[in-house]
Amino acid sequence: MFHDVRMRGFRRRADVHEVQAWLDARVLEPRVEQVPLAAAHGRTLAEALVSAVDVPAFPRAAMDGWAVRGEETFGAAETDPIVLEVVGLSLPGAPHEDEVHQGQAVRIMTGAPVPAGADTVLRAEDGHQDGAELSVRAAVPVGKHIGERGEDITVGRTVLEAGRRLRPQDLGVASSIGAGTLPLHERPTVRLLVTGDEILEPGSAPDGAQIVDANSPMLTALVERDGGVMLDVAFLPDDEAVLRDALTEARADILLVTGGSSVGQEDHAPRLLSELGELTWHGVGLRPAAPTGMGTMGDRHVFLLPGNPVSCLCAYDFFAGRLVRRLGGRSPAWPYVARTGTLARKISSVLGRVDYVRVRLTDDRVDPLMARGASILSSTTEADGFVTVPRDHEGWPEGHAVEVWQYGVLRV
Amino acid sequence: MFHDVRMRGFRRRADVHEVQAWLDARVLEPRVEQVPLAAAHGRTLAEALVSAVDVPAFPRAAMDGWAVRGEETFGAAETDPIVLEVVGLSLPGAPHEDEVHQGQAVRIMTGAPVPAGADTVLRAEDGHQDGAELSVRAAVPVGKHIGERGEDITVGRTVLEAGRRLRPQDLGVASSIGAGTLPLHERPTVRLLVTGDEILEPGSAPDGAQIVDANSPMLTALVERDGGVMLDVAFLPDDEAVLRDALTEARADILLVTGGSSVGQEDHAPRLLSELGELTWHGVGLRPAAPTGMGTMGDRHVFLLPGNPVSCLCAYDFFAGRLVRRLGGRSPAWPYVARTGTLARKISSVLGRVDYVRVRLTDDRVDPLMARGASILSSTTEADGFVTVPRDHEGWPEGHAVEVWQYGVLRV
Repeated sequence: MFHDVRMRGFRRRADVHEVQAWLDARVLEPRVEQVPLAAAHGRTLAEALVSAVDVPAFPRAAMDGWAVRGEETFGAAETDPIVLEVVGLSLPGAPHEDEVHQGQAVRIMTGAPVPAGADTVLRAEDGHQDGAELSVRAAVPVGKHIGERGEDITVGRTVLEAGRRLRPQDLGVASSIGAGTLPLHERPTVRLLVTGDEILEPGSAPDGAQIVDANSPMLTALVERDGGVMLDVAFLPDDEAVLRDALTEARADILLVTGGSSVGQEDHAPRLLSELGELTWHGVGLRPAAPTGMGTMGDRHVFLLPGNPVSCLCAYDFFAGRLVRRLGGRSPAWPYVARTGTLARKISSVLGRVDYVRVRLTDDRVDPLMARGASILSSTTEADGFVTVPRDHEGWPEGHAVEVWQYGVLRV
Repeated sequence: MFHDVRMRGFRRRADVHEVQAWLDARVLEPRVEQVPLAAAHGRTLAEALVSAVDVPAFPRAAMDGWAVRGEETFGAAETDPIVLEVVGLSLPGAPHEDEVHQGQAVRIMTGAPVPAGADTVLRAEDGHQDGAELSVRAAVPVGKHIGERGEDITVGRTVLEAGRRLRPQDLGVASSIGAGTLPLHERPTVRLLVTGDEILEPGSAPDGAQIVDANSPMLTALVERDGGVMLDVAFLPDDEAVLRDALTEARADILLVTGGSSVGQEDHAPRLLSELGELTWHGVGLRPAAPTGMGTMGDRHVFLLPGNPVSCLCAYDFFAGRLVRRLGGRSPAWPYVARTGTLARKISSVLGRVDYVRVRLTDDRVDPLMARGASILSSTTEADGFVTVPRDHEGWPEGHAVEVWQYGVLRV
């Protein structure tokens, strides 16, 4: 049964970890699509990539020079060269087809197939060719400067594991084994409903009691960062009927609703979600994102995010982002990389809630920014990252070592 | 004068640092374009963003509840409430226009303008309204739960510095001050010429002596990562005339040429560059990217990258990437974030060259991967990052502390 919290406050604030555990336990239907290599950078591999070929498929020269029988160079020196006869040329893509016999050499370029009979490459610097006469000016150990067949990749090897986020070099490896497309997790789709009579669309000038929406460009970028695609942003007045229609009609994996998520009389979203689907959580022990709600409508996940921009960022990062990442095949964990630092000033918190504290990080010094409330978005642009205070802590004294999650350092 | 190194080796290998210093000293013409917020994530701000407005432009409620005169709540308690008369409602976008007098309160929602006369917000949880009668159940300090005009941003404040790489929350701040577009550094344009008779285009299966190009998908992703845009990839045979035409016609800030950069007889690119423009560097003391060349053709920068994929990655990251990043307004430094670890096995190098050593990183343990040559691209997908050995070192022993540049952890 829905408990209408409007103007009465939350009955009970859920613990951050139980909400996250619920999100991480949601059973998601993986969707896989084939994507060309050129569009696969940063995306997530849905299935392991196994090679059906050897790379290279032939022994090849690792240097420019001459393919020789290595033992025939033994004893050669700058002042006492050994002479071989150059009988051909092996180029990448145009191999020398005949066998190399005793006393013979084949001019060869890096990457070219090493002809039969030869087992070694003499570097360009170590020989001198005059007509068909090659003066070998250095001895080369047998097998030197040759890459064996399959030295990079052998048939049957798993070159990339399922779940891998694709790096530039991964695309190179995939290409080299003949993969032109890759099976990737589909990008989860997201729609955003921005509610509020006071909200102007981005690109407007703030006017009187009206403010320009900060959340839609921020959330669009966050969703994109986490591997999702923002299909659409709609701006809605504080009107229950309009919001009901928008919620009913919006087709996407995830609906984000900003504003109207709290306990005010214009906060329609929680009751509507409980009416149209299930409001599983409403009110979380998290400062500054207590008025966060979430639940489901059929196969859609719905997140009710506070309208205050810092709260909105915090609620996205603690909750919605986890599901965006998971739907796209990534780990639910934050993409931010943590670094340890020392508090230059104490942080105060309250037992029973998690605190999200923006900080500056200078070398190892951690300066908490004045927590002036959830609406100071510029605190998140001044900050280098944030510290979280767990619910069973009242904060930490100056000098305490803390983990800073860095906004500007991401795991990719 | 061009020294034709084909089949004779490099006369002198340049030092990595002098080449990098040359790149970093190139005078670049900044190009600025106005970009909508929705497309600005991750890009670089060309000019400082200064606010022309206060955000908010009015004092606002930080909580849902009632706007009151704070001192009138003093003495109120759960068991001994103080009663005020509710005379109106202030909603975001629909403020209460009249002054709040003694004994009065105005119902107010988070973000709504605080009416004149009121100086404090009593939270919904701390009062109970019955008709027009408000029972105040807790004392609230004057000024509590109110955000002052300009508390987030004041007129004239620089909210984002020039050169800033834009984070999601930066776009929110920009939007909140009325910016619908931002002046960004234009993305540098790049074209790639892949040379080699043996090269098949990505999506082909390797066949006989022909190998599938690994470099083009990798370089496309690297350029994109560094803020550039790959306009086109062309696949060319080892034909001097074809390459000359392609170099002459390719319009872009940066031309990348893969293959044919060394001292082999099919290595046309260095001589062509010296003929059509200036081959400033050819041959670098860097393993495995010694056969790297670079220079200029008019206002274009040209990089001759080795065809071997690891060499190509290395040459891009040490040289070309610096210029891509600078052209787009970023720092030339690697985007990789370094972490200190301890060598589990020694690394051997040679005085006079820089070594690029792929390593695995497990907690703080650093395992160098067998350096099996420049063509083992899978070594860069197995690796978590790389270590560089400077030119004045012969390597390091087991147990030595080294900096690992992490492929999967980026500064953004």
